[in-house]
Amino acid sequence: MKPVRIGICGLGTVGSGTVNILTRNKALIDARAGCDITIVQIGARRDNPNCDTSAYNVTRDVFDVANNPDVDVLVEVMGGTTVAKDLIFKAIENGKHIITANKALIAHHGNEIFAAAKAKGVTVAFEAAVAGGIPIIKAIREGLAANKIEWLAGIINGTGNFILTEMRDKGRSFDDVLAEAQALGYAEADPTFDVEGIDAAHKLVILASLAFGIPLAIDKVFTEGITKIATEDVTYAEELGYRIKNLGIARRTDKGIELRVHPTLIPEKRLIANVDGVMNAVLVKGDAVGATMYYGAGAGAEPTGSSIVGDIVDVARTLTALPEHRVSYLGFGSDFVSAQPILPIEEVETANYLRMSAQDKPGVLSKIATILSDSGISIEAMIQREAKEGESTVPLILLTNKVQDKKLTAAIRSIEALDSVTGAVQRIRVEALK
Amino acid sequence: MKPVRIGICGLGTVGSGTVNILTRNKALIDARAGCDITIVQIGARRDNPNCDTSAYNVTRDVFDVANNPDVDVLVEVMGGTTVAKDLIFKAIENGKHIITANKALIAHHGNEIFAAAKAKGVTVAFEAAVAGGIPIIKAIREGLAANKIEWLAGIINGTGNFILTEMRDKGRSFDDVLAEAQALGYAEADPTFDVEGIDAAHKLVILASLAFGIPLAIDKVFTEGITKIATEDVTYAEELGYRIKNLGIARRTDKGIELRVHPTLIPEKRLIANVDGVMNAVLVKGDAVGATMYYGAGAGAEPTGSSIVGDIVDVARTLTALPEHRVSYLGFGSDFVSAQPILPIEEVETANYLRMSAQDKPGVLSKIATILSDSGISIEAMIQREAKEGESTVPLILLTNKVQDKKLTAAIRSIEALDSVTGAVQRIRVEALK
Repeated sequence: MKPVRIGICGLGTVGSGTVNILTRNKALIDARAGCDITIVQIGARRDNPNCDTSAYNVTRDVFDVANNPDVDVLVEVMGGTTVAKDLIFKAIENGKHIITANKALIAHHGNEIFAAAKAKGVTVAFEAAVAGGIPIIKAIREGLAANKIEWLAGIINGTGNFILTEMRDKGRSFDDVLAEAQALGYAEADPTFDVEGIDAAHKLVILASLAFGIPLAIDKVFTEGITKIATEDVTYAEELGYRIKNLGIARRTDKGIELRVHPTLIPEKRLIANVDGVMNAVLVKGDAVGATMYYGAGAGAEPTGSSIVGDIVDVARTLTALPEHRVSYLGFGSDFVSAQPILPIEEVETANYLRMSAQDKPGVLSKIATILSDSGISIEAMIQREAKEGESTVPLILLTNKVQDKKLTAAIRSIEALDSVTGAVQRIRVEALK
Repeated sequence: MKPVRIGICGLGTVGSGTVNILTRNKALIDARAGCDITIVQIGARRDNPNCDTSAYNVTRDVFDVANNPDVDVLVEVMGGTTVAKDLIFKAIENGKHIITANKALIAHHGNEIFAAAKAKGVTVAFEAAVAGGIPIIKAIREGLAANKIEWLAGIINGTGNFILTEMRDKGRSFDDVLAEAQALGYAEADPTFDVEGIDAAHKLVILASLAFGIPLAIDKVFTEGITKIATEDVTYAEELGYRIKNLGIARRTDKGIELRVHPTLIPEKRLIANVDGVMNAVLVKGDAVGATMYYGAGAGAEPTGSSIVGDIVDVARTLTALPEHRVSYLGFGSDFVSAQPILPIEEVETANYLRMSAQDKPGVLSKIATILSDSGISIEAMIQREAKEGESTVPLILLTNKVQDKKLTAAIRSIEALDSVTGAVQRIRVEALK
């Protein structure tokens, strides 16, 4: 069988991990692919001390790789959505199969990229774009192909999970742990993408498209970060039998598809509630298979490289298949990918955790309870503490039943308007994941 | 694209689940496969009340399906290793692709079946044979193709896990829970396959072949059941920070490959230690990806049917690929599948849990400690209780360091020979799974 010739663009963390795996495990990978897989060119602005490229043809201009007639498969691991985008369109134009780890690029421009690739009859594979080394895209796109996916929920940002885990295990504050995560290199200097849920949103829309056969809809995702989670929220959640995790959730409902990333209380008994540190996990509920979960490293040079190389082997295995027989980009024949209404967060129904600071005097609770019951919201659980010495307010924690988001938002406004409640009401959504 | 025509042999639990999924989710499945997937014939000795086959062509002779020229893909879900074996060889001879859920058949006769299939250029897919609805075979064979797999460990028998979970949660005895499991239909009237680890051994050899590229070696697996686990072992394990799970373990070592199924103490902090009830999970350690875990229902009509239908979609997607480009049966080009030495259990090194009943008098512990240290075995942890009122013996529980199996076996014999130790020494292996 003729060799499959790889061009790699980018030699950062993922690029170096990919090159190192292809070099170290070449015999094994060729045996699995059933053919010789060769790196014919690497495009990188600079070398990487973690990666010996002396045996390879290295260019400083990644477009050399896209234009290299000897390259069958272009691996884009540069990141970013400008040069990387131009590079991928150029490579598709030149008839090359594309493998990328670029979640932002797929989330924002996947629809156009898939259309261009389909016109050229080339593959676009992006296992590495979601949950690092976990083969979650293959699982949804192929392994669970029999299933009408009902919902999925994922811990798909390791930095956020590390922060929440440390806050729980050690009672540390968000800012304190974030600073350490940055020092450890788990978090970027600008942590916005991680802590505001943007990175998770990129991954969620990709998973949702695979699960439901919808075009990528990054502009439709509701995103709420973990920056406002206080140590006491973590503690109260535990008292109530829950863990707080930053989840990406996609659910099929009669009214439309839910797409949301936000901190979430999960019953501590759920396996996914016990996924700690920088690890990732995705829980997928299918109508036939029931609940399945996929766990592993969500980032890192070789875990992410593992997914890139897995895609390379897949491409090698299907090179001779007719394009219409290859697994399509989103797992559905692209004629079948159709837009479905995305439910705005206001319409989404969830249970909720509420924490407020109330005056320590009679009648306050009844006022709050009245506001909630008037909105048809019932209280499932409550924690009330006695006021500390010399304090005039007490923390009040409530768990509500399932309620439409906008109804609860309105009720919270009314509660905040009470003289007897000081400051804002903390609100965190709750998911049973059953 | 021309339709893919399916023949289904067997209409028991898995067969009916498969037919029901293909019927209910046909539009979705066709969309994912990119072609029309049609059941052209069902072979079953009798009907199944859980499955409406009125729309299908049903025959009482499964060989009609194997000989039906309109059948492209034969799905064998009858079970057993006699008729099912003849049927599959006949179907291969007739050039049909094979999909089976038959773990015993693949474990015992997979090597011959793959050879015959290769000669005919047809696919043999068996995702449903291991861990029911969890796409673990696809994950190892494709998703982790970049990795040199170092080891895998799985809870791959739901009945055994249900029994051990109940023993722990409710302090019930093995026999008590087994009786209930049989009443609930989790366990067969003859539970030998489940409780003696035979079923797990079938699945383990399949996973090991995929992981290491070795022929199926069912005769080389060390198998120990869970029948001898006492409620107090479960309790002592918890005191020591462990859970007892029935694991199938395959590990690559310099001396050879370990293939073993036995009750195992696992640190309770490990995610897999928290997989309870009838659920299955497989932990796979790759050199690039690190540890990944796959969790879901290990049995049942639709979970297992989900894997069968996933295989059907895979076959449909690769029908036009050249045989040498299709994913090979064990994930390695079959020319690369090579026997490697399997390490006999005597040579395997593990830590161990020991429980014995010792005379409540001075010097006993020192005798036992001396026997162990003379064999180079050190004690990592110990529980010793005071004798109960009127009892002359006390339970003594020890955790050893990692030691060669035969060395510990010899030491146990010496300990059992002591006058001051009454009865047999209970011994359960320990795995850190790190």
